[in-house]
Amino acid sequence: MGKVRNGIRKKQIEEARSFLARCITGTQPGDKLPSLRDMIAQSKTTRSAVEKAIRYYEEEGLIRCIPSSGILREGLPNSKNNIIDVIACHDAGYMNTPNAFHRYFVNYLHEIVSREGYAIRLHCVRDTDSLREYYRLAELKDSCGFILMSVKISEIVNIFKETSKPLVCAFPQAPLQEAAQLLDVPLIEKSLEYLYQMGHRRIAYMSTLDEVFFTYVAHSRVLEYYRFMAVHGIKINPCWVQKAAWSEKDARVCLQNIFSSEPLPTVLIAMDTQIPLIYSFLMENGFQVGQDIGVFAMDGMPENNQLYPSIASGFNPRDIAAMKVWALFQKQLDGKKCTESVYNDFQIKKGDSLHAIQKSGK
Amino acid sequence: MGKVRNGIRKKQIEEARSFLARCITGTQPGDKLPSLRDMIAQSKTTRSAVEKAIRYYEEEGLIRCIPSSGILREGLPNSKNNIIDVIACHDAGYMNTPNAFHRYFVNYLHEIVSREGYAIRLHCVRDTDSLREYYRLAELKDSCGFILMSVKISEIVNIFKETSKPLVCAFPQAPLQEAAQLLDVPLIEKSLEYLYQMGHRRIAYMSTLDEVFFTYVAHSRVLEYYRFMAVHGIKINPCWVQKAAWSEKDARVCLQNIFSSEPLPTVLIAMDTQIPLIYSFLMENGFQVGQDIGVFAMDGMPENNQLYPSIASGFNPRDIAAMKVWALFQKQLDGKKCTESVYNDFQIKKGDSLHAIQKSGK
Repeated sequence: MGKVRNGIRKKQIEEARSFLARCITGTQPGDKLPSLRDMIAQSKTTRSAVEKAIRYYEEEGLIRCIPSSGILREGLPNSKNNIIDVIACHDAGYMNTPNAFHRYFVNYLHEIVSREGYAIRLHCVRDTDSLREYYRLAELKDSCGFILMSVKISEIVNIFKETSKPLVCAFPQAPLQEAAQLLDVPLIEKSLEYLYQMGHRRIAYMSTLDEVFFTYVAHSRVLEYYRFMAVHGIKINPCWVQKAAWSEKDARVCLQNIFSSEPLPTVLIAMDTQIPLIYSFLMENGFQVGQDIGVFAMDGMPENNQLYPSIASGFNPRDIAAMKVWALFQKQLDGKKCTESVYNDFQIKKGDSLHAIQKSGK
Repeated sequence: MGKVRNGIRKKQIEEARSFLARCITGTQPGDKLPSLRDMIAQSKTTRSAVEKAIRYYEEEGLIRCIPSSGILREGLPNSKNNIIDVIACHDAGYMNTPNAFHRYFVNYLHEIVSREGYAIRLHCVRDTDSLREYYRLAELKDSCGFILMSVKISEIVNIFKETSKPLVCAFPQAPLQEAAQLLDVPLIEKSLEYLYQMGHRRIAYMSTLDEVFFTYVAHSRVLEYYRFMAVHGIKINPCWVQKAAWSEKDARVCLQNIFSSEPLPTVLIAMDTQIPLIYSFLMENGFQVGQDIGVFAMDGMPENNQLYPSIASGFNPRDIAAMKVWALFQKQLDGKKCTESVYNDFQIKKGDSLHAIQKSGK
């Protein structure tokens, strides 16, 4: 009989304990647990079993009994979630280009948030992937917020908005409404203003508007070019504007086109990644960079600093872009809303690849 | 014992029947079913049970036993599916504009396919809807193919490509690869060529590039405008290009801007839907249409035919667009692949709203 009674008592203690465990996991530190009387009733055990279970968890440091106040859930608040999910949207290869803007941007962002105790989890959703991937990412429970890079349609932004977590869109490739976003500065317009002030009129532009990997920003830059020329009444030679894909072969064809017919340009604007090839091409064809023809780089990547003559460039500083995105993110960390649009900075690095033109006649 | 044996036999016949039913639903008319021996083995019943089940379905007309050939699934091939699903993608209201291009296009398409015994099922996926809606539509079993209107990203096209059913993209709002598509003609460029030939140089353009409802085509048209002017060395007054939203108030502000500073334009290009308002505005401000200022409509909708003076316009004929889409669709009806890109036509309707300019000096 003693054995049986012992067995029953043991079982009741176990049941009381597992009841209490459920109470504890269902509460946040600082929360009040049910009263002793309620615990006895709800656990369907005895007073003695519940008291033993309480003592057990009190010793474990999970609860605390405060006379005339009740039983409190002990402990620090749950360690705050600090994973930021950075999503490269519609990735058609831009995340695999080691020197390109996006990579630098993510590296700087990583540095900044790490200092503040946050971590970055990086996702590339390729343009051949299922759109369901965006739904899966939005459902990540342990995410404290999202940064979308280069998103093309507002429908994707809406998926993440619905989580009510912090959300920043970096360099969106379509106009967005009601979202915190970092927008590209009109880089070509600003570069043209600079070149115009130096006296250049015949300006060529080798764009990266590859029709297949169309982006709103690349398209807008070509528009800025034509707009600037039309507003200033500069009659352009249509071959000055070339759309180059990423291959060297394609870029060479574009360069041949640009220098195929009079009037020749006095300066050429091109993406930073193409500058070394342009230098070679011009040398091979007997042009002296910075004398016969100016060269101006966009998005100047550090690797180009070794070139001779030194390359002049106009760019949005990647570190400042990362800081601005982080500032927009931080504003939302306490559950506040933020739908600000912030622009990238624009900076110019002078270089010997650019010469001033004496204003003659016009 | 007899009862028990009868019960077992009955149960085996039932099992053989349900096995055969599964075979039948899993095949198309004309397909061969498993051999008698395989059926006995796979159904785990007896020869007699399977034979009874075969006789049963033979009498029902669902299968036919052909000596030395086997058991065939009977019946006509499934009646050919003839529902075409037309999907208005990213619809931010364009399908609710009764006079607009998309509606006319669908109406003409409807006429054409109906004559050939096909039906159109129309879906609008709003830009506030879930992207999952596209997956749902692609899974419609009774669809014989899809026509996507104004799709913005290739990821959505890929969802429908995977069905291997006929697919045509009409007026895609992004460059697409490997898809049958009807592309917009460079409408502004062609219109400008026409106006230029008539002697016009100072050309204003009230675009519908509303940043919020951004489309690739609207953006490209503005680019065409600036490009044309720059290539022809025409110095533009920046206020000649205005981005008008759909409201009358907004359009009036744009018109005031266009006519606010010298040099004034000699002609104004605008969307057909805005022409009546433009006529009123010009009259109120003392301009005579077709004398002091020319007006040229894009996408000329029939309702404008009642205007006085008659309106000149440049447009892509909606009926021909519908015919071209149907031709691309038909090419794929027998399971053939077609990834052709076809362009819209361009037509000009003359009108008294346009006057020739005598070429003086330049």
